[in-house]
Amino acid sequence: MKILVTGFDPFGGESINPALEAVKKLNKKIGNAEVITLEIPTVFNKSLEKIEEAIKEHNPDVVVSIGQAGGRFGITPERVAINIDDARIQDNEGNQPVDTSVFADGENAYFTNLPVKAMVAEMVKAGLPASLSNTAGTFVCNHVMYGVLYMINKKYPHMRGGFIHVPYITQQVATKANTPSMSIEDITRGLEICIKVISETKDDIKVAAGTIC
Amino acid sequence: MKILVTGFDPFGGESINPALEAVKKLNKKIGNAEVITLEIPTVFNKSLEKIEEAIKEHNPDVVVSIGQAGGRFGITPERVAINIDDARIQDNEGNQPVDTSVFADGENAYFTNLPVKAMVAEMVKAGLPASLSNTAGTFVCNHVMYGVLYMINKKYPHMRGGFIHVPYITQQVATKANTPSMSIEDITRGLEICIKVISETKDDIKVAAGTIC
Amino acid sequence: MKILVTGFDPFGGESINPALEAVKKLNKKIGNAEVITLEIPTVFNKSLEKIEEAIKEHNPDVVVSIGQAGGRFGITPERVAINIDDARIQDNEGNQPVDTSVFADGENAYFTNLPVKAMVAEMVKAGLPASLSNTAGTFVCNHVMYGVLYMINKKYPHMRGGFIHVPYITQQVATKANTPSMSIEDITRGLEICIKVISETKDDIKVAAGTIC
Amino acid sequence: MKILVTGFDPFGGESINPALEAVKKLNKKIGNAEVITLEIPTVFNKSLEKIEEAIKEHNPDVVVSIGQAGGRFGITPERVAINIDDARIQDNEGNQPVDTSVFADGENAYFTNLPVKAMVAEMVKAGLPASLSNTAGTFVCNHVMYGVLYMINKKYPHMRGGFIHVPYITQQVATKANTPSMSIEDITRGLEICIKVISETKDDIKVAAGTIC
Repeated sequence: MKILVTGFDPFGGESINPALEAVKKLNKKIGNAEVITLEIPTVFNKSLEKIEEAIKEHNPDVVVSIGQAGGRFGITPERVAINIDDARIQDNEGNQPVDTSVFADGENAYFTNLPVKAMVAEMVKAGLPASLSNTAGTFVCNHVMYGVLYMINKKYPHMRGGFIHVPYITQQVATKANTPSMSIEDITRGLEICIKVISETKDDIKVAAGTIC
Repeated sequence: MKILVTGFDPFGGESINPALEAVKKLNKKIGNAEVITLEIPTVFNKSLEKIEEAIKEHNPDVVVSIGQAGGRFGITPERVAINIDDARIQDNEGNQPVDTSVFADGENAYFTNLPVKAMVAEMVKAGLPASLSNTAGTFVCNHVMYGVLYMINKKYPHMRGGFIHVPYITQQVATKANTPSMSIEDITRGLEICIKVISETKDDIKVAAGTIC
Repeated sequence: MKILVTGFDPFGGESINPALEAVKKLNKKIGNAEVITLEIPTVFNKSLEKIEEAIKEHNPDVVVSIGQAGGRFGITPERVAINIDDARIQDNEGNQPVDTSVFADGENAYFTNLPVKAMVAEMVKAGLPASLSNTAGTFVCNHVMYGVLYMINKKYPHMRGGFIHVPYITQQVATKANTPSMSIEDITRGLEICIKVISETKDDIKVAAGTIC
Repeated sequence: MKILVTGFDPFGGESINPALEAVKKLNKKIGNAEVITLEIPTVFNKSLEKIEEAIKEHNPDVVVSIGQAGGRFGITPERVAINIDDARIQDNEGNQPVDTSVFADGENAYFTNLPVKAMVAEMVKAGLPASLSNTAGTFVCNHVMYGVLYMINKKYPHMRGGFIHVPYITQQVATKANTPSMSIEDITRGLEICIKVISETKDDIKVAAGTIC
């Protein structure tokens, strides 16, 4: 089994992106999965083009994208991506779409087909703060998650795909007051657990992991 | 113009629901809108049945549902509802659906057709903390928002609909450590501003109000 | 009984100070107490000079100073003031002392002799978020609390004194993300409850209201 | 130079204490300092008795106590300890003092004579979240910090002493929602930086590191 794992380059004034740092550190063989890593730009559309190139080159079974969620306390697999681009800040090439579709002919939203609840459960079992998220925002992270699931839906129905948000790493918050973080080692460990679960699990577990609001 | 405004009864161990308290206090005439208020149970399906009864009785132009979002700092109109029920706690009749659809033949998600960014802008202008939210959770609030937009999509295409989450009111947090709240007067004022904007505005304003993640 | 209540002018880029706004709204007669209000500058030393002038003019039984604590969720009477000025930002006249004493011949700290736990208990009973604080910071608020208790200790032993921090008011946080606030009406109500308790209670109640850390 | 470093046993329902875990992992030789470690019980008075025994046995130049501050985001050296025991929960032997002095003949407060601002600056430079704290609470942590500074003041004037609070470690928050943490490796690294600074620095640096409130 081949798993393509993508990480964004830094954005929003940060000099590193914890997602990319963790992706670089991943073992290239996890369980029975071969891990292929890919750096993608924090840029609308171009990020998706790079992913589709890699899909064509490697024909992976799974695409998992990793992104930074500054302010979150743990690792948060995403349940759903929505068909909207609404950028509060410019991306790394100056684009700032407001309330446009990711793909005009796409569904309003796509649900991931990764076993996100099992991923969360295994991370918590391993002593890592993790929970299921119901929003990937409206910036390039949601854009990439939506775009990958759109491609799966339209062209690559045998593939699975999804997105995992990770917190700042410790050194990023040294000068930020009251901002949560995790060590790069723990983030990497969490992602390797997720990849192992993905490689072994087809159907998600059925446990309540909802959010009141 | 007729606007049906719904508020939930208390749930989750609370003895009051700020949404319902605020709904009760609303002026019955706001701008050119006649306001019809409706208490609905915090119960899957039954909440929607009560709303459809009221739709049939009053034939409103707009349905706006109001719900409590304990832990949020301001008033947050919702952008989107997703086709999932995933209840971390039981509803008020003991139902606890896990990962089931709201409606099997519905879209993955529906976007509100209320002018949510204009609503936020007017509340902020009036000195109230407010922002646009991209997740209504996966409990009865999302269920009701999704269900109303489903009904609009399937049966009442002339109608508009949406959801507004409100924080705890001050007295609810007197014994909760470090929990944000607003006064019932400010919440009511914020909802009246929203209703006025809804009654006067068809198309939303085009400003960036996105969330990074 | 005469109670002198002081409020600071705005500082730190804010155009209003919730403490001063609330002080202005106080009833001039609360229980058996005559309330005398005083605006003081957010300036080291000068603030204390203004208070001592008012003490000489009015000979109050109690001095209570009110200050803004942006970021706190409720009303927080202070337990203790420490003999240090350490200003992260300049005061309103450009002073920025670093690690100097408030008064070189003062104690390391002074405990308030107001019934702070009873004040908290009555506010909570009235539905207001309130708790006892163990730090008034190291800026002008702590400076004023320390200075008043120093004066009581050295020159006015019949007097009682203390400090109450209040959160931002709602309109101050309209454009601040995830920042707690209270309405000016609730802050004023909380302060009036405190003044009533002070006027009726000499010895504080003996309940655990400590902080782990 | 000899530095005695103490860590508390677990309390408050936790099965581990990050302070103790980190203390156990410390190098026994840091810079020119010999590090002596000591486990102390989270018990009023008994904790101080154990420390005084160790002082008599080892005659250290410095005593630094480390404690857990669940909810804090970084490592926080403490500036000051106050002469009050006010326990919101029972200690590990069931004691729950309310508003009693630590030592009846002690000062109202003692300031640490460790170079706390230099310690913070070096930790931040090393990429660790750290800041100066102005309150050690009113539970056993403050009790121990106060007690050690009292002993220094009364009996061991050549000694230096102080306290450092550390956050939860990552595994402690795996099942706590929205609670900050650091890895045990980073906490240990931060403490070793502090000890190195203590061993090399007599007078603190003069930089503004105050708190507004």
